[in-house]
Amino acid sequence: MVGDMAAQFGKETSTGGAFVRQPNAFTDRVTADGSSGRRPEAGRYRLIACLACPWAHRAIIVRGLLGLDGVISLGLVDPIRDDRGWRFTLAEDGRDPVLGIEYLAQAYRATDPDFGGRVTVPAIVDVETGKVVTNDYPQITLDFSTEWAEFHKPDAPDLYPADRRAEIDALIEPIFHNVNNGVYKAGFATSQEAYEAAFTALFAELDTLSTRLETSRYLLGDRITEVDIRLFTTLVRFDAVYHGHFKCNRQKLAEMPTLWAYARDLFQTPGFGETVNFDHIKRHYYATHDQINPTRIVPLGPDESVWQEPHGRG
Amino acid sequence: MVGDMAAQFGKETSTGGAFVRQPNAFTDRVTADGSSGRRPEAGRYRLIACLACPWAHRAIIVRGLLGLDGVISLGLVDPIRDDRGWRFTLAEDGRDPVLGIEYLAQAYRATDPDFGGRVTVPAIVDVETGKVVTNDYPQITLDFSTEWAEFHKPDAPDLYPADRRAEIDALIEPIFHNVNNGVYKAGFATSQEAYEAAFTALFAELDTLSTRLETSRYLLGDRITEVDIRLFTTLVRFDAVYHGHFKCNRQKLAEMPTLWAYARDLFQTPGFGETVNFDHIKRHYYATHDQINPTRIVPLGPDESVWQEPHGRG
Repeated sequence: MVGDMAAQFGKETSTGGAFVRQPNAFTDRVTADGSSGRRPEAGRYRLIACLACPWAHRAIIVRGLLGLDGVISLGLVDPIRDDRGWRFTLAEDGRDPVLGIEYLAQAYRATDPDFGGRVTVPAIVDVETGKVVTNDYPQITLDFSTEWAEFHKPDAPDLYPADRRAEIDALIEPIFHNVNNGVYKAGFATSQEAYEAAFTALFAELDTLSTRLETSRYLLGDRITEVDIRLFTTLVRFDAVYHGHFKCNRQKLAEMPTLWAYARDLFQTPGFGETVNFDHIKRHYYATHDQINPTRIVPLGPDESVWQEPHGRG
Repeated sequence: MVGDMAAQFGKETSTGGAFVRQPNAFTDRVTADGSSGRRPEAGRYRLIACLACPWAHRAIIVRGLLGLDGVISLGLVDPIRDDRGWRFTLAEDGRDPVLGIEYLAQAYRATDPDFGGRVTVPAIVDVETGKVVTNDYPQITLDFSTEWAEFHKPDAPDLYPADRRAEIDALIEPIFHNVNNGVYKAGFATSQEAYEAAFTALFAELDTLSTRLETSRYLLGDRITEVDIRLFTTLVRFDAVYHGHFKCNRQKLAEMPTLWAYARDLFQTPGFGETVNFDHIKRHYYATHDQINPTRIVPLGPDESVWQEPHGRG
């Protein structure tokens, strides 16, 4: 999740006013064959997430759908950071009960004392060493699906089926650039030109996806896959934060009938809606980005009850 | 129209973070009987307006509906102010062609050399003296309807009929506080509490008005009156600026079916839609209020073509 935006706005902004996301710092992996130096192990790894963050949200949903809840524990940070960053103030004593730290930055520094970038969620932390294994969010969910198979629950869905990976990967790419990260490029642009380029690419991609979803319940037919989850975590935040706060306002999601029904369909699927916390989402975005909302006032809208309306799909 | 918001945010903000609009500075009048010292006279008075401004927009609509176009001339200011305020940069030489001034502030200072408040539109200027007669926007439109009757076109509507004034005035009051000025109170609030109070009052009032309009084409039955015009100039700006920029986001106007159809009905009535300039509206609001949009980026949305959709009323 974006962090320390005051300084970050400069570091991750191009001379043309475009937002350029930093690379991920830690890219170790846990692999089924142990070739990475780490094997899946129950209770050994902890997922640190923020309920506001779309990148972390993916990992929470995938972990739940696969039944990894009892295997990989979950630590949540407060949606509002202070000047030291993501903090464990949701716990009574202000410390993560497993890692014993107050700030996620402590785990980052334990891993790399010279770390100077943004501290981000999601992060997988080794509870034995207290060090970060990975904050490489695109790989984390794929590894949950593939490398952690021995711990999946019996009826777990195959979210990244081997015979469809080329198609999934081909969809993931434009959805990341134009939608998942596209909303950030619109919202964090510091020039009208950069904003308009992001806005145009975003809605063109949404139109393409909408057409696809007119004849297909999910992006790859009648089964939910990784790429649906990646699209969902952006769509579920669309009207609450991206439409107004990030100026992605050609229409609300609620005004794009196919995408809106698709998003409600997923929201009402077990494992999705119960992971959505609009309070954390709104407070995080509106109270974090002083460059675009200096008053830090959090809007009362939109009405959230609409997510429970019948979707008419399937 | 709100002016010089940087300094103004302080001057017009209460200790509780609420926006408190300044009183109007000039309140002279032109009256049919000349008791005010001024009688209606063709070509003598000039209406200075900004197409972005809802208060000035009222005067433009009323002037047009009554056929006063050829009697009271119209001077338009640029939607973007500079550090000297409203300016006549829409004209080729940067001067109002009738008054010969570059800034509206010049007319204000010609009237009161000690004037120290916000220079606002609409303003009625005496073209003989170059002085401001009035910037008292609530009275300007009422006087167009009543005091300028001898100059009305033959089929002019009676926008402020004598036998309905009590009802009209009773509606004007809550619509001003909760809607016309209510959106500003939400947008300019500097505390969460002040914002939430304004938001709640705004949508409660809109719900009340919506119920009323379910069984009545206009607010007072089957004829357009002053209060419809006052509500229209806020509604037409709602999705373009108030929904996102001012955080009035329970729903878009386009998601409130009765009010949305009512607003489209008026938009499509001669004298209304052709006075709406979404480009001026969006550029003014988004590029003026650095306290709530420091990047000055102007959103590309929303889609404006929806205003031409059939309204199904009448």
